[in-house]
Amino acid sequence: MKLATLKHPELKDGELIVVSKDNTKGVKATSIAPNLLAAMDNWKMAKPRLEELYSQLNNGSVNNSFDIDQKELHSPMPRTWQWADGSAFIHHIKLVRMARNAPLPETLETVPLMYQGGSDTFLAPMEPIPQIDFSHGTDLEGEVGVIVGDVPMGVSSEEALKHIELFVIINDVSLRGLIPDELKAGFGFFQGKPSSAFAPFAVTEDELGEAWREGRIHLPLKVEINGEFFGKANAGEMHFHFGQLIAHAARTRRLSAGTIIGSGTVSNENREMGSSCLVEKRMLEKIDEGAMKTPFLKVGDTVKIEMYDSQGNDIFGTIEQEVIQA
Amino acid sequence: MKLATLKHPELKDGELIVVSKDNTKGVKATSIAPNLLAAMDNWKMAKPRLEELYSQLNNGSVNNSFDIDQKELHSPMPRTWQWADGSAFIHHIKLVRMARNAPLPETLETVPLMYQGGSDTFLAPMEPIPQIDFSHGTDLEGEVGVIVGDVPMGVSSEEALKHIELFVIINDVSLRGLIPDELKAGFGFFQGKPSSAFAPFAVTEDELGEAWREGRIHLPLKVEINGEFFGKANAGEMHFHFGQLIAHAARTRRLSAGTIIGSGTVSNENREMGSSCLVEKRMLEKIDEGAMKTPFLKVGDTVKIEMYDSQGNDIFGTIEQEVIQA
Repeated sequence: MKLATLKHPELKDGELIVVSKDNTKGVKATSIAPNLLAAMDNWKMAKPRLEELYSQLNNGSVNNSFDIDQKELHSPMPRTWQWADGSAFIHHIKLVRMARNAPLPETLETVPLMYQGGSDTFLAPMEPIPQIDFSHGTDLEGEVGVIVGDVPMGVSSEEALKHIELFVIINDVSLRGLIPDELKAGFGFFQGKPSSAFAPFAVTEDELGEAWREGRIHLPLKVEINGEFFGKANAGEMHFHFGQLIAHAARTRRLSAGTIIGSGTVSNENREMGSSCLVEKRMLEKIDEGAMKTPFLKVGDTVKIEMYDSQGNDIFGTIEQEVIQA
Repeated sequence: MKLATLKHPELKDGELIVVSKDNTKGVKATSIAPNLLAAMDNWKMAKPRLEELYSQLNNGSVNNSFDIDQKELHSPMPRTWQWADGSAFIHHIKLVRMARNAPLPETLETVPLMYQGGSDTFLAPMEPIPQIDFSHGTDLEGEVGVIVGDVPMGVSSEEALKHIELFVIINDVSLRGLIPDELKAGFGFFQGKPSSAFAPFAVTEDELGEAWREGRIHLPLKVEINGEFFGKANAGEMHFHFGQLIAHAARTRRLSAGTIIGSGTVSNENREMGSSCLVEKRMLEKIDEGAMKTPFLKVGDTVKIEMYDSQGNDIFGTIEQEVIQA
C-alpha cells in the first residue's frame, strides 16, 4: 500500500490519500482518517480499510480517483510527534568525523548514534531548501526511514521490528558550517539540522518485497545533484538494523505512534556507489587529492532523491528540492 | 486565563478545559477546540472565546462547570510537535559540567545551550516516573517554559517575545548516569532525557502580572523532595530571556504553533534558594564537604514542583510524581 498527503491551505497535516502502485492515481481517504498522523493513532482500524481502498484503486473500481501531481503532495506527515535520526552507516560516521577532526565514538559499533530532530515543520518533497548564508554549508543527507506505531519502553530489537508500519525516504538537510560549534558546546544538533523533507509516498512492507529483510531495505538510494549522478549507495548496508535503532530510541521511554526513525545518511565503502551527502565526497577528495573541491549547495542547486525496486519501479516518489535564498 | 487538559481513555491529546483563577472549577472548552494543540493551531480564533469562557467561569455564570481534581488532568499538551529545552541559568551549567568533569562551552554567556527533546509522550503532572535501574541516576529538573504560536525563521529576540502565548512549569526528568556517555558520543541527549511532566495549568501572561518582565518570570520555583524543602530558586535570574531562546531555536527554521521552549533548570547562586535538581546539590556537597552525599532519586521518592505568585496564589497547579520501578 502507498499513502500520501495532499497539501491543504488550512489543514497543517494535509489530507490523507491512497496512491496507486504505479504512482499515477490517487483517491482521498479522509473518510477513514483525516490525515496520516490520525491514521497512525488508529492504525489497527485504519490499515485494513486503507488496504481495501488501495486494492480498489489499483483495479480501477474507484470512481473519485484523480491524477497524482507530486507538486501537490506534502511529506507523508507534514509534522509529527517525533523524528529520531540514527546514524547506522559506520562508513558515513567515519568520513564525517574525519572531515571535522572529531574522534570516533568508542561505542561506534555497539551503540547506535541517534539524535532527536525537529519534527514540527517538515518541508514538502519539492519545497525549496531556504539558505540563509552559503557559509552555513548546506548539505543533503539521503536516508531511509520507518514510521512506527506505539512502541513500549524497553522493547527488544527483534520485537521492535514488529512495530514498523510504514517506510519512507528522507532528505535530512544539514548545515555543516554550524554543526562543529554546536556539537562542541555539548548539547547535540539543533540549528545545524533544519527541516527535513520526505519523498511523497509512505509505503507498507509488501511494497518492498524481498528487499526488506534483516531489518534493512536492500536497495540503492538514487541521489542526483543538478541532474547528475551523485550516489546509488545500498541502504541494506546499515550496521545497525531498524529494530536496533527503534530499541535504542525506546530504551528509557515509550514512543508514540507516528514516530519516524531514520537510518542516517546511506553510505557504502564501495566508491562506485557514490555518496548521499556532500561532506563525504568532500572528505574523499581531501583523502585522494589533498583538498576538498566540491562546494556545499549554493542557491539554484537542485537535489533529487529516489529509490527504485529491482524491477525499476519508483517506490517512494521523488524528493526534488532547489536551494533558494532565505 | 488558565487552560488544562482532561485525560481521556481514547483521545491521546485529551480534552481542552478552562480552569478558574482559583484552580477549583473547570469547564470543557471542546466546542472551541478539541484540545490545546488544536487551539494553538487556531489561536487567534480560539483565544478570545476561551477568555470569554474563563471570565464566565470565574464569575459563576457557567452552568456545566465541575470541581477540578488534578489527578484527572494530563500535562497541558500530552504530546506536541516540538519540545526545545534551553539551559539559560549559567549557574546550573557551571555546576553540572563540574559534576561530570566536562569543560564549559566557550560561548557560555553569548549563545544559549539548547537541546531538542522528545515531545511525543509527556507524563501527566501526577504520573509516576518509571525507573529502570537506580544506576541511571534519576534526577528532576524544575523549569519554567513557554508555548509559542507559529514563529518565522530568523525572528529577532525582541519579536520572538510576541509569539509567546502560554506559560508552563516543567519537570524535565534526567538520567545522570546515562548522560556522560551519551554526550561523549557527540549527538547530544537522547536516552538521558526520558519523558518530561508539566504542571496541569498553562496560563496566559496576565496571570503572571508584574512577575513577567524582560522576557523572564520573576518568581521562585518551589521544589520539594519527599515533602521536604529542596529549592525556591527565582526563575527571573535567567541569563538568556525567553525571546533569546526562541530566536535561537528559530535561527535556521520556523517553529510550529504548540512548540514548547524550556528555560533549563532554574538555578540561583544564592545558596539559600536551594536547588531545582539533585546534581547541583550533589556538586555543592562535593565542593563543601569533599563528597556527594545526597543520592539520586530512588523508588518511592516523591518530587513536587509548584510556583506561587507574590500574593501566595498557586499559578500552575502541582507536579507531584513518585519514582516507581519500571
